[in-house]
Amino acid sequence: MRPHDYLKEFLEDIVLVELKNGKLLRGRMVSYDGHLNLILDDCSEISEDKEVRLGKVFIRGDSITMISPATPD
Amino acid sequence: MRPHDYLKEFLEDIVLVELKNGKLLRGRMVSYDGHLNLILDDCSEISEDKEVRLGKVFIRGDSITMISPATPD
Amino acid sequence: MRPHDYLKEFLEDIVLVELKNGKLLRGRMVSYDGHLNLILDDCSEISEDKEVRLGKVFIRGDSITMISPATPD
Amino acid sequence: MRPHDYLKEFLEDIVLVELKNGKLLRGRMVSYDGHLNLILDDCSEISEDKEVRLGKVFIRGDSITMISPATPD
Amino acid sequence: MRPHDYLKEFLEDIVLVELKNGKLLRGRMVSYDGHLNLILDDCSEISEDKEVRLGKVFIRGDSITMISPATPD
Amino acid sequence: MRPHDYLKEFLEDIVLVELKNGKLLRGRMVSYDGHLNLILDDCSEISEDKEVRLGKVFIRGDSITMISPATPD
Amino acid sequence: MRPHDYLKEFLEDIVLVELKNGKLLRGRMVSYDGHLNLILDDCSEISEDKEVRLGKVFIRGDSITMISPATPD
Repeated sequence: MRPHDYLKEFLEDIVLVELKNGKLLRGRMVSYDGHLNLILDDCSEISEDKEVRLGKVFIRGDSITMISPATPD
Repeated sequence: MRPHDYLKEFLEDIVLVELKNGKLLRGRMVSYDGHLNLILDDCSEISEDKEVRLGKVFIRGDSITMISPATPD
Repeated sequence: MRPHDYLKEFLEDIVLVELKNGKLLRGRMVSYDGHLNLILDDCSEISEDKEVRLGKVFIRGDSITMISPATPD
Repeated sequence: MRPHDYLKEFLEDIVLVELKNGKLLRGRMVSYDGHLNLILDDCSEISEDKEVRLGKVFIRGDSITMISPATPD
Repeated sequence: MRPHDYLKEFLEDIVLVELKNGKLLRGRMVSYDGHLNLILDDCSEISEDKEVRLGKVFIRGDSITMISPATPD
Repeated sequence: MRPHDYLKEFLEDIVLVELKNGKLLRGRMVSYDGHLNLILDDCSEISEDKEVRLGKVFIRGDSITMISPATPD
Repeated sequence: MRPHDYLKEFLEDIVLVELKNGKLLRGRMVSYDGHLNLILDDCSEISEDKEVRLGKVFIRGDSITMISPATPD
């Protein structure tokens, strides 16, 4: 199974997305493509002391460092 | 539905565009392409304490980190 | 109409070009191509407190963040 | 044997992955592709003084500087 | 006329070349190609307080932000 | 002889690899490819005051600035 | 004559190579290719106050800003 195949398992789950600029986003992953472009639904930008609601967000794939489930099991 | 298909839903809506250099733009999205190049109409650059009117703006796709609706519903 | 089609509307107009390094240029846009390479005529680099005349300038497209009219209507 | 062939030896092993932004991740490498995209299982981000559990993580290949075994033999 | 066609007008002229790292070079442009690689003859690196002679210089195109005539007419 | 042909001479030798992020690695070069991806065996990260053993390391080619023999002859 | 044709004139000459990270190397250029990958022989890294001998060095082309003769004539 290739790395991109694992993204399918993340679909509809709440994920954390870390961006190259250090920002952290949390939202429900509803779509992705081969460039790692993502749509996160109910997305928030989260930091130490606050959380900013963004709603539905398109994230450009080349801005992303890593994607992980919001609740490591 | 692929991420780029969701951009169609954003057309004619007021969106927030975050750039890789950290700047934040707000405007009505009137056009996009596969490289994520955008045209925002009535665009302003917004920051903590001010808002600078730019009018119609061409944004180079590779400068963009994410795009979200200005009013998360 | 695709984003690049809007650039045609900017031709012969005075535009502001913001570069990835944060610099701001103002000049008359006389030519562009699909890589967003530009020729600005009567171009100046503008900052808070001064304006440096550069004359005719070739700008490499991948240095550009955004292009907007100098006078938002 | 080409460099990518050596990655096969790392499969199912605990590896350290250093990112271009300086972060260090440790986890079990369960998948990789030709772009160096990785899936690390039981992944943690480790730093001088703490370790943050992330669970299963997709790492974008172009964020990576190097990959090495967690226990140099 | 495309942007690259204007470079032909700069040939044999003294030009200023601004690099992405902020450095400024001045020299006679004797050759260029489609990647914007340049040869500057009698080239100097110029800064506020000094000028360092470099002679004939090959400049890698992807290091360049912009090219303009040394004497805006 | 092209630059990549010289890499063959470095095979099985102890080399220094300087990364774009400024780090310096030393190890025995056992494999390379056309993207400059490398496998260094018995690799250590070396700095002014210490040396950290990493073992066998995969280095992503686009992270590399230069490769030189550990013992300039 | 295209910029890359001028590199042939630099062959076997002592050149200065400036890297994107600001470092300066000096050595005899014995090989280059279309990506601007270089082999410098008897190469040293030079700075204000010291010179570090590196021997034969492979320099990755995309790390390079410019190449010039060590002795501007």
